Parts: sequence; C-alpha cells; structure tokens
Amino acid sequence: MTADAADLDRADPLAAHRDRFVGAETSLVYFDGNSLGRPLAVTADRLPAFVREEWGGRLIRGWDERWMDLPLTMGDEIGRVCLGAAAGQTFVGDSTTVLLYKLVRAAVDASEAGRTEIVIDTDNFPTDRYVVEGVAAERGLTVRWVEVDRAAGITADLLAPALGERTALVLLSHVAYRSAFLADGEALTRLVHDAGALVLWDLSHSVGSVPLALDAWEVDLAVGCTYKYLCGGPGAPAFGYVAARHQDRLTQPVQGWMGHADPFLMGPGYTPSPGVRRFLSGTPAVVGMLALTDMVELIDAVGMAAVRAKSVALTSYALDLADEVLAPLGVTAASPREVERRGGHVTLSHPAMREVVAALWQRDVIPDYRDPGGLRIGLSPLSTSFAEVETGIVAVRDALMAL
Amino acid sequence: MTADAADLDRADPLAAHRDRFVGAETSLVYFDGNSLGRPLAVTADRLPAFVREEWGGRLIRGWDERWMDLPLTMGDEIGRVCLGAAAGQTFVGDSTTVLLYKLVRAAVDASEAGRTEIVIDTDNFPTDRYVVEGVAAERGLTVRWVEVDRAAGITADLLAPALGERTALVLLSHVAYRSAFLADGEALTRLVHDAGALVLWDLSHSVGSVPLALDAWEVDLAVGCTYKYLCGGPGAPAFGYVAARHQDRLTQPVQGWMGHADPFLMGPGYTPSPGVRRFLSGTPAVVGMLALTDMVELIDAVGMAAVRAKSVALTSYALDLADEVLAPLGVTAASPREVERRGGHVTLSHPAMREVVAALWQRDVIPDYRDPGGLRIGLSPLSTSFAEVETGIVAVRDALMAL
Repeated sequence: MTADAADLDRADPLAAHRDRFVGAETSLVYFDGNSLGRPLAVTADRLPAFVREEWGGRLIRGWDERWMDLPLTMGDEIGRVCLGAAAGQTFVGDSTTVLLYKLVRAAVDASEAGRTEIVIDTDNFPTDRYVVEGVAAERGLTVRWVEVDRAAGITADLLAPALGERTALVLLSHVAYRSAFLADGEALTRLVHDAGALVLWDLSHSVGSVPLALDAWEVDLAVGCTYKYLCGGPGAPAFGYVAARHQDRLTQPVQGWMGHADPFLMGPGYTPSPGVRRFLSGTPAVVGMLALTDMVELIDAVGMAAVRAKSVALTSYALDLADEVLAPLGVTAASPREVERRGGHVTLSHPAMREVVAALWQRDVIPDYRDPGGLRIGLSPLSTSFAEVETGIVAVRDALMAL
Repeated sequence: MTADAADLDRADPLAAHRDRFVGAETSLVYFDGNSLGRPLAVTADRLPAFVREEWGGRLIRGWDERWMDLPLTMGDEIGRVCLGAAAGQTFVGDSTTVLLYKLVRAAVDASEAGRTEIVIDTDNFPTDRYVVEGVAAERGLTVRWVEVDRAAGITADLLAPALGERTALVLLSHVAYRSAFLADGEALTRLVHDAGALVLWDLSHSVGSVPLALDAWEVDLAVGCTYKYLCGGPGAPAFGYVAARHQDRLTQPVQGWMGHADPFLMGPGYTPSPGVRRFLSGTPAVVGMLALTDMVELIDAVGMAAVRAKSVALTSYALDLADEVLAPLGVTAASPREVERRGGHVTLSHPAMREVVAALWQRDVIPDYRDPGGLRIGLSPLSTSFAEVETGIVAVRDALMAL
C-alpha cells in the first residue's frame, strides 16, 4: 500500500520552502520543474530592485563594481553549492548549446593527432547530438555512436567498447532527459581517462537535483542548464566547467573581448585570458543571470544532501503510486527502479500519453510529453509536495479512463 | 556663441520622454547611453509582472504561448522600427560576439573557392577583430586589414583597394565605436557587392540612434547590440539580420535544437530550419530579452527620424560647446564635424582625459574613456537633455583646470 501523501508532507523537513515559490498557493499541479523551474517570489522583487538601483542607479559603473566578474563569481557559487567544484573552474554565460559547442571544440582542437573520434550515445539530448555532429563534420572527425536502450541508460559495459586510442572526447548526459537514468559519473570518467580521452558531462538534468563531485571525479569539462532545478527563468544562461589543470592548454573558438587577457586594452590581436575567463566570449548576460542567484542561495541553505533526499522520496512515491493506480491501466515505468540510478524525474509510458498530456494541461496538471509515449514528471524538490504528486497521478488515471 | 541649453530643452519636442527613464530626476550627468542605456521605468514594472504572471503563472506553457517565437517576433519589431528590414530576417539571441562568429562562419563557409580573404578595418571594435582573426585561423583564410585613420573613418576610397576576386566577406562597423564616424552603408555595400563578396555590418553603435535601411541598401548580414540605445539592460542579447535571399544557402556552425527544422521531434540528425530560425542555437534568453521591448515600443511611437534629429542636435551642441569652453584648454574633437558622417556620440581628445574621466566619475558625471586620450560622450536621444550636456561639458572644463 502506497504511503499517504498528507503524512509524507507532514514529515517532510523541506515542506515549508514550497511557499517561497510563486504559484504554490494555487491548485495547479506542476510536473515540469525539470524543464522550467517555478520562480521564487524573492526573484520578483530582485529584478525591479536591480533595474531601479543597480542598472538605473549605478549605470555603466556597475561593470566595474560587480557585473564584469559576475560570470565567475556566480560560477564559483554554482560550483561550490551544486557541483563539488573548487573556485576558478565554473563560469556562467551563453546558452547550453553555445557552451557545448565551445567546449567540444576546445577539447577536440587540442587533442593529439590520431584521436579522431567523438563518442556520444544515441539517447543523449538532441542539442548535444547536433553539436557533436556539426563539430565532427567541420573538423573532419568521426562521431562514434553508443547505442543505448532508453530504459537501461549509459553504463561502463556499453561505453567501454567504443573507447580506444582514436577517442578524443566523450560527451555524456549525467541524468538522461527522458528516462532520468543516472549515470555513474565517477566510474565513467575513469573509463574515459583510461582510454586517454577527455570527458564532457552535460549536467542539465542533474544540477540542483543530484549531488555532484566534479573535482573528486576528476571530470575534465562540463556544461549545464540553469532554468530547470536552479530556477533561473526561461532561457537563463548556462554554466560551463573546465578543470583547472586544462585551462591553460585549451582555447575556444568564439574569440571575443570578454575572453581576452585585457578586455579594455582594445589592442590588436587576441590573447586569451589566463584561467577560466578565456571561455567567455561576449558581454555577460547580467539581467538573465539574476534570478539564478536566489535558488542557488536557497539550495546552499538547505544543502544538496537534503535536496537529494527529498528528490528520491518524491520520485519513489510517484513510482509507487503509479504502480498502484496506473499499472492496472497498462502504464509502465520508463525510469530506473533503483534509487541510486535515478535522477529527479520519472517517465511513465503508455501509447496514449500524448493525448493524456493534452487532456491534463486543460485541467491545470502540467507534465511534459516526450516521444514515444512518455509522460514525464519532473519533481523539483523544493517546490513540489507529495500531495501535488498524488493529485497529478490520480489525474493521469482519470484522463486515461476518460479516453 | 553657443545656443542656450535651457532654450534648446524648451524647444525639444522629445524633451518630455526623458522623465520616462529611471534616474532622470537625479543630478547625475549620464554620458554613456551609447554603452549602457538607462532603463525605462516601465521596465522595472514589466520584469516582476513577467516573473509572477507569465513565468510563474504560465510556467512551461509560456513556451508554446509566446516564448518560442520571441526571438523572431522581437527581431521583426527591431527590424521594422530600427533597421528598415522586412519581417523574417531579424532574430534576437546570443551575445554580439557569438552572433558575429555564427554569421562570419556562415558567410565564409558558403563562399566560392578562391575567395579566401576576410576584409576588416583596423579601427573596428575589438571583438569584431578577434572573431575575424579566429575564424580566419581555423578556416585557413587570410585577414586583409584596411588601415583607417580614426578621425577619417572607413570610406570607399580606403576600402576599394582591399576588395577583389579573393574577397569572401567584409566586416564593417556602421558607426565607429571611438570616433562615431558614420559609414555610408549603401555605398560601401554596393562596393562590396561589385567585388562579388558579402558584407556584414556591425550596427551596435547605430541601432536606435541612426536610421538604417538594410533592405534598401541590399545588406547581406548584420548584427547589433541591444543594451546601448535600445536599453535592453546589461548583457541583453544581440540581434542578427540575414537577408531573405541568403537564408536557405547559408548555415551556421552552432547546430542546436532551436535552429532545427522541428525542435521537438528530437530525432537523429540535424536539419536546419527553413528561414531565419536556422541561425538560432540554444534556448532563447527570454528573461534577458524583456527590457528591450519597452524601448523599441517607445522608438516606434516617436519615430527614428525624430530620434535622429534630436541625436544630431545633441552632438552638434556638444561639439559647439566643446569648441567654446574646452578648445582653449587644448581639447580637440575626434569625431566628424559633418552631421551626415557622425553617429550618436562625440569623442573629445586631450592627453589627460584618463585622469579627467576618473575625476568626473567622482562627481557623478559619467562619460567613458577610450584609449588613446578619448573622452567619449554618448548621447541617448530620448534620455539626454541639453542641460545635461552643458553641465557635463562644464564639468570637463573644471576637471581639466583642476589637474
């Protein structure tokens, strides 16, 4: 018998944080915190204060006073709170896609002669695959595809045969965007290093949901999104991570003034900045970065261990309840049962899920649909209650029965 | 004798708009509207409303309802109001530097065999030069430099000898960032076309200040910044323009899901979208784009002709006053005297200008400093008064005399 949602909410040490988010007081069921996190109410106050006082009051002086270093200071905070990364390795800027391009290029452009393959799996996020295909085509490299069964996820057994002396770079997603399969970051990084290659982790579905230890795992490169569990708002800039040991030998192709050793020298010729600043290109997206601050602060106060514990409890409850009320209607779980192999969302499969999602949206129950037949339930640990999960799963049942 | 500032303000048909801007009521003299425009007060209301109602209320549904098309709808508005560009050719996204990279690559990757040169002038903005140098190095092309005397600016006489059958692309700034020299967009575009090459105009210091007619001039490609005269806020995303006739034959290297023909198909292989959408890469920077809306609406209401008339009046007044009160102290104008060759700012030269700018900042008079010895006065037509110009120029005199 599945636990009672009200009991779980009463026992939840993080329950009180839910009221910090805009819209928590409504009856809407939000199952898409892994796609676009709800805003914190404090963010709605931070933005006009920024416009009136900092942008409007400090004007151009804001660059010297704070904004110029914001990509690095905010990167350091994300690194410390969420990534297990020491300062000086994480930066914020551009979109996830642009950062993927820059870091894939940085890695393959510096690889030894003969290392002509970029390894990626077939279940990786589309933009990751498109970037890799594009870079391979323009640099005369080969894409080596690892066939991954969606339910199984990327494992050492699947990856190992693709690695060898021709491998330049391996691009992997830490949590799979459809199944939520949680890859073994440490073991796969070691496997890639054993083959003499670099690894680039896409942390978009992990950051702010699953604890990470990039330095301890000896990760080379990483990128991630900030508008999911970090609640940076639609289209907030991404972050990148470049391990300190690689920074001086890697360069990226989008040479701009903000990556220059002396941006305001404005002289002839591009000299990349020392350190992680060389991975910046254009003017930092200050306005776009602001919302992010609030959620990183909240996660820091709560701690990633507590966030993960709530996340595991939410996804476990969703799976248990789905077994109880949806399995009899032919719904199957397309996410791992073992908590140590599961990220922060749950995908449920049924041939009619496209229609189910459309019907749920009409009733203010908002999950995502992902082909084929996947209803994706993203559970943001600090803004989702167990009661919300219960209401949503029951609504899925009602929608299926009404078809 | 220079005109009286108070008389000029009384006669200014746009004077009343100044009160719409944050900080207009203070005594601060802001001479940097060409670097970071002042915010409109309405922007300070728009952002929290967006957080509470659109992001917080519509959540992921906002993508279907409005945000997915925002890069193109906002691009069309900038095109119509500021660029003289028909719909379907302008888009908003990424930084100016990233867009320069994407469009330079798009142009040279599609150029005929034998066209191996990118032409750029020595007075172009640093990031433009760095991007061109980087692309040339990675694609095995040559950078052909046009030596430009700063005061003279880029002209047909200077450009013509650099063009020929080896020219692939010419990258020019429409208004020079130091001198404000205003290039002849139509004539130089024709000159480049006569050589069989493409032109990419950087409009960062023109858009929202100088009227543009990209379609009429038959411009191929353009980029521009939105945080200067368009008041998009620090680091607001840039815009790009690709003439309709080139869109289906040009592709850009940062292949991402938002440039795909069907972003949510999420299938294997990248197929570029038809039309201008193929120049997008990652998730649109929605939060970063919002502020921009307000200024484009205001410029639309006022009209670019009126904006330019005020701009010319402001820069002419600044030069006249500088002649009267600063020339006796050895200050010279480093901007064109002819209004038809001058953009929206004025640069004044003196060997001590670095110290002068530092002293002025202490007194809440905020110009920019640009090497060598340039005090740059950016005059944003809708937020700058003639009285502000007078106060600032007098403060320059006082600072020089106090050295």
